[in-house]
Amino acid sequence: MARITTSPDFSREEVGLASRNPGMPLEGMRYPVTPVGMHYLLIHFDIPFVDPATYELPITGRVQKPLRLTLDELKARPAVTMPVMMECAGTGRAHLSPRPVSAPWRDEAIGCAEWTGTPLRSLLEEAGLLDDAVEVLFTGHDRGIDQEVEQSYERSLTLEDALREEVILAYEMNGQPLPLQHGFPLRLVVPDWYGMASVKWLKEIKAISEPFEGVQQTVLYHYRQSEEESGTPVTRQNPRALMVPPGMPEYLSRKRHLSAGRTLVEGRAWSGFGPVERVEFSADGGYTWDDAELDEPAGRYAWVRWSHEWDAREPGEYELCARATDAAGKTQPLDNDEVWNQGGYGINGVQRVSVSVG
Amino acid sequence: MARITTSPDFSREEVGLASRNPGMPLEGMRYPVTPVGMHYLLIHFDIPFVDPATYELPITGRVQKPLRLTLDELKARPAVTMPVMMECAGTGRAHLSPRPVSAPWRDEAIGCAEWTGTPLRSLLEEAGLLDDAVEVLFTGHDRGIDQEVEQSYERSLTLEDALREEVILAYEMNGQPLPLQHGFPLRLVVPDWYGMASVKWLKEIKAISEPFEGVQQTVLYHYRQSEEESGTPVTRQNPRALMVPPGMPEYLSRKRHLSAGRTLVEGRAWSGFGPVERVEFSADGGYTWDDAELDEPAGRYAWVRWSHEWDAREPGEYELCARATDAAGKTQPLDNDEVWNQGGYGINGVQRVSVSVG
Repeated sequence: MARITTSPDFSREEVGLASRNPGMPLEGMRYPVTPVGMHYLLIHFDIPFVDPATYELPITGRVQKPLRLTLDELKARPAVTMPVMMECAGTGRAHLSPRPVSAPWRDEAIGCAEWTGTPLRSLLEEAGLLDDAVEVLFTGHDRGIDQEVEQSYERSLTLEDALREEVILAYEMNGQPLPLQHGFPLRLVVPDWYGMASVKWLKEIKAISEPFEGVQQTVLYHYRQSEEESGTPVTRQNPRALMVPPGMPEYLSRKRHLSAGRTLVEGRAWSGFGPVERVEFSADGGYTWDDAELDEPAGRYAWVRWSHEWDAREPGEYELCARATDAAGKTQPLDNDEVWNQGGYGINGVQRVSVSVG
Repeated sequence: MARITTSPDFSREEVGLASRNPGMPLEGMRYPVTPVGMHYLLIHFDIPFVDPATYELPITGRVQKPLRLTLDELKARPAVTMPVMMECAGTGRAHLSPRPVSAPWRDEAIGCAEWTGTPLRSLLEEAGLLDDAVEVLFTGHDRGIDQEVEQSYERSLTLEDALREEVILAYEMNGQPLPLQHGFPLRLVVPDWYGMASVKWLKEIKAISEPFEGVQQTVLYHYRQSEEESGTPVTRQNPRALMVPPGMPEYLSRKRHLSAGRTLVEGRAWSGFGPVERVEFSADGGYTWDDAELDEPAGRYAWVRWSHEWDAREPGEYELCARATDAAGKTQPLDNDEVWNQGGYGINGVQRVSVSVG
């Protein structure tokens, strides 16, 4: 479990995780497909080196016919390419008070890359799941210690989730081989879910007959109000809208400065629970809201662009906010602490951008 | 000037800069050329968008024949490709106590990419520097507020430095067009110097008849012991050796864990003052040192690989260190505070890696 701190300041460990794990600069939302090198990363242990020439993926466990596939064999299978919005489950954690001590994300643990890979479902069908299989376990080549347990990074999906047709084994990102740090040569991509499900550097896929109870599955990535609760698993991405902060920044504070007049504020919105149906914009810290304009998303699992012409007529200090609502009726709280939980997961309070209009 | 803090903890501003500005995961030193997306970044303001189709670079000011070049014209000129070790001048700042408040780098503000571009010198010769030109000013498309001054990011070089044959205008990184966040479509690359000199997103090059006195040139990037001093400019990279931390990490602390036995420890070393002539390794926090083996560097401005077989015979706690010495006789201090300065620049105390051998 995460240690909780009431300090407004951040520890050396948190800063270390921030320097290792880049967020997306929010101005990167100008691009419908996040350029390589701007997409967020959360690397639990070290980036492993996996030799693509000798790489083989075993599909084993409770299957009729275990498989072992080279990278070329995987690439020869039917391929799909799709933009997928991905967000770290720890998003927004740094906004909380008290604060769980882990990667101190604010709003930037995001990216929407175009992934190419082969559907997992047809591979599992080819291997033939046995009747007693209940979950599929995905193990990465990355290894380390977390919660005092030595482990490979591994997570499972229920059969129902593993067999969703949009779940793929990806070997390309934005039309190029996966970057080393994004799971080269092969990773799982689970659309709509927070990033922890999309296991990188795949070493093995195994059908199992008992629910997986590893650290990343049962100890971490649960919504809990206290350490004692078993809680509920973190799965789909909560709705969120973010804006490209308008104007120009001050270096240290990142506070925005803007000339008075009309400004087109734009951003992106997404939800793992269904299409975004509404994005609202506020220039007064969330007291009053205007509907923003929504473009068509580039795909079912992509974020959607929104825009709003803000008339910043009067010089002064403003707090800009954006709020998304999805087809399931889920929306964002005004205050991150309304969705506080022990691990600091899925925090989706409205974004707040301070702007000085002069 | 940087605000100074005595807090061992880090402010929200520092964490914000860490999340925006990725360091290189140290295991990335396994690769002689740093893969795109692993190279450190320090982006002072926002990443600007510059349209390559309409891009033009003016070379103006105190020249006989002002030039204006499109990207195609720049690419048609003689091209050089070379690996260049680049490090942020703020490297090591987070190790200091008291600590200047800015990007809280520890050891990871590094990268050694392969840059392709055209030499600046021949362009300046073509434009014809007038007799009263004393410096060349490089202005970026990125704009914001720093030290309470609104500014484009800009820095100058003396004529002597600007005319060094290895200074290039780069349009490719690792054989591909510059990534947006690394200065697309065109940036300066000044080998041997800290990264602040290699201005990104070039908007204009201007020969000037008075020394440039902008914020990034005279207020920031100076070695000063107190705010009152004018100090000396930050220029060349101090010698440094870094190791790939051996073993495997604990998630939060990044503390290393290793099995007893012989381990090949490897890393990279560099100096902006001349070739690295010696790298030493210590397994006892810097009390005793062994010479490491040095490979041949891939180029005059590249880092050099070093390795050392460490016999971790006894279980226990170790503090591993590495130290570089260059051809100019410059080496690294044992303690970062020995090189403390007001801005936290050029901090090159020996790397210290805690390892638990079991």
